[in-house]
Amino acid sequence: MTALTFERERVIRFSDCDPAGIVFYPQYFVMFNGLVEDWFDDGLQIGYERLVAQRRIGLPTVRLEADFRGVSRFGDKVKLALAVERVGERSLSLQLQCLGADKGDLRMQMRQVLVTTSLASHQAIAIPSDLREALHGAPQAATP
Amino acid sequence: MTALTFERERVIRFSDCDPAGIVFYPQYFVMFNGLVEDWFDDGLQIGYERLVAQRRIGLPTVRLEADFRGVSRFGDKVKLALAVERVGERSLSLQLQCLGADKGDLRMQMRQVLVTTSLASHQAIAIPSDLREALHGAPQAATP
Amino acid sequence: MTALTFERERVIRFSDCDPAGIVFYPQYFVMFNGLVEDWFDDGLQIGYERLVAQRRIGLPTVRLEADFRGVSRFGDKVKLALAVERVGERSLSLQLQCLGADKGDLRMQMRQVLVTTSLASHQAIAIPSDLREALHGAPQAATP
Amino acid sequence: MTALTFERERVIRFSDCDPAGIVFYPQYFVMFNGLVEDWFDDGLQIGYERLVAQRRIGLPTVRLEADFRGVSRFGDKVKLALAVERVGERSLSLQLQCLGADKGDLRMQMRQVLVTTSLASHQAIAIPSDLREALHGAPQAATP
Repeated sequence: MTALTFERERVIRFSDCDPAGIVFYPQYFVMFNGLVEDWFDDGLQIGYERLVAQRRIGLPTVRLEADFRGVSRFGDKVKLALAVERVGERSLSLQLQCLGADKGDLRMQMRQVLVTTSLASHQAIAIPSDLREALHGAPQAATP
Repeated sequence: MTALTFERERVIRFSDCDPAGIVFYPQYFVMFNGLVEDWFDDGLQIGYERLVAQRRIGLPTVRLEADFRGVSRFGDKVKLALAVERVGERSLSLQLQCLGADKGDLRMQMRQVLVTTSLASHQAIAIPSDLREALHGAPQAATP
Repeated sequence: MTALTFERERVIRFSDCDPAGIVFYPQYFVMFNGLVEDWFDDGLQIGYERLVAQRRIGLPTVRLEADFRGVSRFGDKVKLALAVERVGERSLSLQLQCLGADKGDLRMQMRQVLVTTSLASHQAIAIPSDLREALHGAPQAATP
Repeated sequence: MTALTFERERVIRFSDCDPAGIVFYPQYFVMFNGLVEDWFDDGLQIGYERLVAQRRIGLPTVRLEADFRGVSRFGDKVKLALAVERVGERSLSLQLQCLGADKGDLRMQMRQVLVTTSLASHQAIAIPSDLREALHGAPQAATP
């Protein structure tokens, strides 16, 4: 992933882990959901809560490809990173990574395609213009 | 997916849903995790809990490809289905689907690659022979 | 608890457990939430989803007292049981228990006070008459 | 609660909320679990992960009394606060609160009794001496 990313650090919680003592894998998606919220708030300056709760625009996931490369254990400090891969008419493709915060070793990475929808109809709608504009200035993923 | 599948029905719970009133997508993976447990117990007759807690063999996910095609709402009855796509030396590839229980409309489908690991080392190990044997009798996914 | 209870059995899932291999305690409340949904649907015949999503009546918890008496482990079969303790003007007090399904040993019990609210204002409202009627026929907890 | 508390701020996430748009109540316990981890790490300087994963000492909850006073919505900034109420031979009683970060309005408060256990036997053990010492210097709840 390019250096132009939006990043946040996070500690792996007891509640993130399973009886094997490592992150229960669906929990990575919960963590990344939080990262996208922070990105909308602090990176894109769009306001995720305002988008969803007030403007009634949803961002459901339509496609996901994830590779799990290393385990994250309870107490680990991890870095969550995000870059934009592609902006379409009504969809948005992201690259996301979870890395060890100290050594930068890759734990998990994924490509996620999100669609902008009306929360009234759950149908896809065009990306709102303020979001589109903000995405132009966002960190772009390197061409693979 | 072929008719030769392992299936379970389930109701979408309040706790599965997000402020948009639909299944919070990581929750699909939690549901499928339960389906795989049931499959090991009732389909393969291997005993998931015995495998993990007593034999100390893990089944972490190493690769996931998921497509979300339709929303599932609070109160919906869904059918979760699973078939084996491929059995490797140390890995196992599954096809999984979530369908509306009444109309059979596809809500979400995924391919999931699991690896058998030692829970002591978190390193991959060969699929145990009893599991390998049981997998031969399991429902196989149609060749795509 | 009296014999007049609404009951459901459930298997403790991998996803219910923490790195200590036992139920992560907040997960008991998620399980009981599912029990209350089943009770509204199958016991009271009120329709939990219809109540919340269509009639826009919420049932938030205002008070909880819980005692944890024994651990539940991954793979355990447990029985979840519920009885009505008291029906007020705008609130409802329940007794809930989680027991081992085989030996009936108590794992956890709680008293939960729920309030009927308008989901528009999040303010308490009188218990709807159909719910009040259904509650009269529901299993009552023995006087302590 | 006294001013002598351990505190952390947190944003209410989309994933914390239910179809009513407010915090799904079991999620408060997940949040408080994270607060206790932070308190052990940063306040008591004991190291929660080391305690649980390496020293194999558990801290299960045996008693809980919770009052829910106001709703927390998606996007809200909340303050989580904690004080010690009582230190016993093998148990520890805490007072915990969730408040609006801006106005300090009480959303939820609870008393939680934790027991120190051996994770080998799940039996109660005496509070380790380093933890006992650290607790003496910790913020104490005012006598009710």
